[in-house]
Amino acid sequence: MNRDMPAILLGRVRAQKPVVHHITNWVTIAACADIVKAFGASPVMAHAKEESADMAGIASALVLNIGTLTPEVIDAMLLAAKSANKKGIPVVLDVCGAGATKYRDESCAKLLDGSRIDIIKGNASEIARIAGLDVKTKGVDSTEVKGDLASTAAKLARERNCTVVITGKEDIVCGASGTYIVKNGHEMMAKAVGTGCMAASVIGTFAAVEKDLAVAAAAGLVCYEVAAENAAMKAKGPGEFKSRLSDEVYILSGENVSRNQKF
Amino acid sequence: MNRDMPAILLGRVRAQKPVVHHITNWVTIAACADIVKAFGASPVMAHAKEESADMAGIASALVLNIGTLTPEVIDAMLLAAKSANKKGIPVVLDVCGAGATKYRDESCAKLLDGSRIDIIKGNASEIARIAGLDVKTKGVDSTEVKGDLASTAAKLARERNCTVVITGKEDIVCGASGTYIVKNGHEMMAKAVGTGCMAASVIGTFAAVEKDLAVAAAAGLVCYEVAAENAAMKAKGPGEFKSRLSDEVYILSGENVSRNQKF
Amino acid sequence: MNRDMPAILLGRVRAQKPVVHHITNWVTIAACADIVKAFGASPVMAHAKEESADMAGIASALVLNIGTLTPEVIDAMLLAAKSANKKGIPVVLDVCGAGATKYRDESCAKLLDGSRIDIIKGNASEIARIAGLDVKTKGVDSTEVKGDLASTAAKLARERNCTVVITGKEDIVCGASGTYIVKNGHEMMAKAVGTGCMAASVIGTFAAVEKDLAVAAAAGLVCYEVAAENAAMKAKGPGEFKSRLSDEVYILSGENVSRNQKF
Repeated sequence: MNRDMPAILLGRVRAQKPVVHHITNWVTIAACADIVKAFGASPVMAHAKEESADMAGIASALVLNIGTLTPEVIDAMLLAAKSANKKGIPVVLDVCGAGATKYRDESCAKLLDGSRIDIIKGNASEIARIAGLDVKTKGVDSTEVKGDLASTAAKLARERNCTVVITGKEDIVCGASGTYIVKNGHEMMAKAVGTGCMAASVIGTFAAVEKDLAVAAAAGLVCYEVAAENAAMKAKGPGEFKSRLSDEVYILSGENVSRNQKF
Repeated sequence: MNRDMPAILLGRVRAQKPVVHHITNWVTIAACADIVKAFGASPVMAHAKEESADMAGIASALVLNIGTLTPEVIDAMLLAAKSANKKGIPVVLDVCGAGATKYRDESCAKLLDGSRIDIIKGNASEIARIAGLDVKTKGVDSTEVKGDLASTAAKLARERNCTVVITGKEDIVCGASGTYIVKNGHEMMAKAVGTGCMAASVIGTFAAVEKDLAVAAAAGLVCYEVAAENAAMKAKGPGEFKSRLSDEVYILSGENVSRNQKF
Repeated sequence: MNRDMPAILLGRVRAQKPVVHHITNWVTIAACADIVKAFGASPVMAHAKEESADMAGIASALVLNIGTLTPEVIDAMLLAAKSANKKGIPVVLDVCGAGATKYRDESCAKLLDGSRIDIIKGNASEIARIAGLDVKTKGVDSTEVKGDLASTAAKLARERNCTVVITGKEDIVCGASGTYIVKNGHEMMAKAVGTGCMAASVIGTFAAVEKDLAVAAAAGLVCYEVAAENAAMKAKGPGEFKSRLSDEVYILSGENVSRNQKF
């Protein structure tokens, strides 16, 4: 990926202000809206099956997150994803908590098999689970996964013909155009609730303005995590960190990104 | 409206601590509760149709917001609104996202036709849509509306025999007692998620303590937006702004309001 | 209770990082997740009846909160509670808003009679209601209750063979091992939304690491409220207070707890 892409896409998000439709979980729904808005885009959240397809129809990207899934919400997600597929806008699926229960695994399969998911995003144990490996998860926090994560991501990306993102200390992004390793970020991100869900929202926001989805995902993560580094530098704990994260995203300059990016 | 009214009603809210019942959306539900509580009132949120009417029965105002509507929630809203009508407490409807989907428009009609809504609140494009104009919306953020907004508000207020509030750079409040233009506020409000939803909650809170609903709405917006100006002055971005907004509302004095009000 | 217990259990929570499963309300769900995570534990929220039992099966404690209950959510709570009972992990019920509507009272009864609730937690008027006293509530904020609260708590604890926690200016914890009065805390807690719900989550977190549930509840409240005192000291209002609360919990030392605890 060209070294200028994160800064270029950051500028594009701010100029185009894409509508990013979400069907997400009730825990981090406000945090996801906040971060998308802080980037200058326009978040919208609508989970009724009566309108989820229509709302996808006016959006430039769709972000799905199964954190607090129910059958009704999964139905609405499928309708929204099919509508997004028809319109040709990218669909991001955060497989939040995959592996924690049978119902989560089945719901992921239902979404992956019933619609075209363009970007699958999760932490190491969640993606390993989606890739069919036998992993034990511990709720929504990642557990250690043995083996080569990049290979797991690449295999899943090939099989599903999509982009795969594994977030963690280093993020792995595998897509048609290549594999990118993002080394930005800060350990405080793992101490605060919702940083993973927000990452999916950021990926959706950047995918709304760039067709190479692996580049979009990697560039979005770079921008988000540079801002997180800036926020963590001054924060005493997760409360101040989350408040500052929005602010640092809001004031983030392309120059600051280019100077601090690690990929 | 008397120049003292914002400060007087602020004092009345703090003295009476009204219970303000909400059926609102999952994105800004915490922000709405926070702002009502910061004003010294007592927010309650209950969306089950099994209890929404009873909860309205112990409240002094009802705030409805269709941001993340579902059929079940709309049913609960109707029951709560009818209960509020019977008790004679004011009902505020935030037509959040009206115009974005057919389902939203139909649900607004269902609420407006099936119960007495005392105050309809939205941004320019949402209210224009409710007033029957042909507008395109872009999710939940306002789009430009051509024509005279004050006339649109006045016409809708007359037709529905209610108070109409259009929030924006200048807020327009049209009711039986007249039309008020509130010129307080700060551009940071448009950069943060939930400031519009919170405005509806504030209007409901002030409507709980003052029978002239146009005066209540305008005075509430004045107090809220003076606090927002105080918060924005010191905030680096939307994260700090939202945290400070609660604090500035909490410490807001009637004197500070009177000195800074613009209406 | 041994004077060292709060600090000891704080250390145990951080070392064991228990998964604490929640089925809670939509207003404070993020705040509850934040506080559990700030203590170093791993919050998970899952309210679908299709998975709530399985999720309880991988958790070390279950926290139920009826703040925004619906029939579907109550069903999921019952399934989760029965699963928790079978596994032998503690179940905390926050009877949020009990007494406000008939439906809330009936739902509390359904949960209490249909599963084993190990810790019942509420404010004075909520617990009085659960204990069968005739009290009027005002939404979710506590109202004055006449009579001896400690006796009410003790009677309910005996009748239900469980631990009972009444939060307030002084917290009363009654269980098999005795009655503990926690005198920490700060009046700012009553000015901010969600501090009661967070208290239940903290109690669940500490109950995950200590078998004497009355000691766990009291020790958890001591730690939480010492952190709240530290946060309130520096906060201008409820916005800054809530952000700082997470930070103060995050950096809280056992030494700081031991020095400031009042019980």
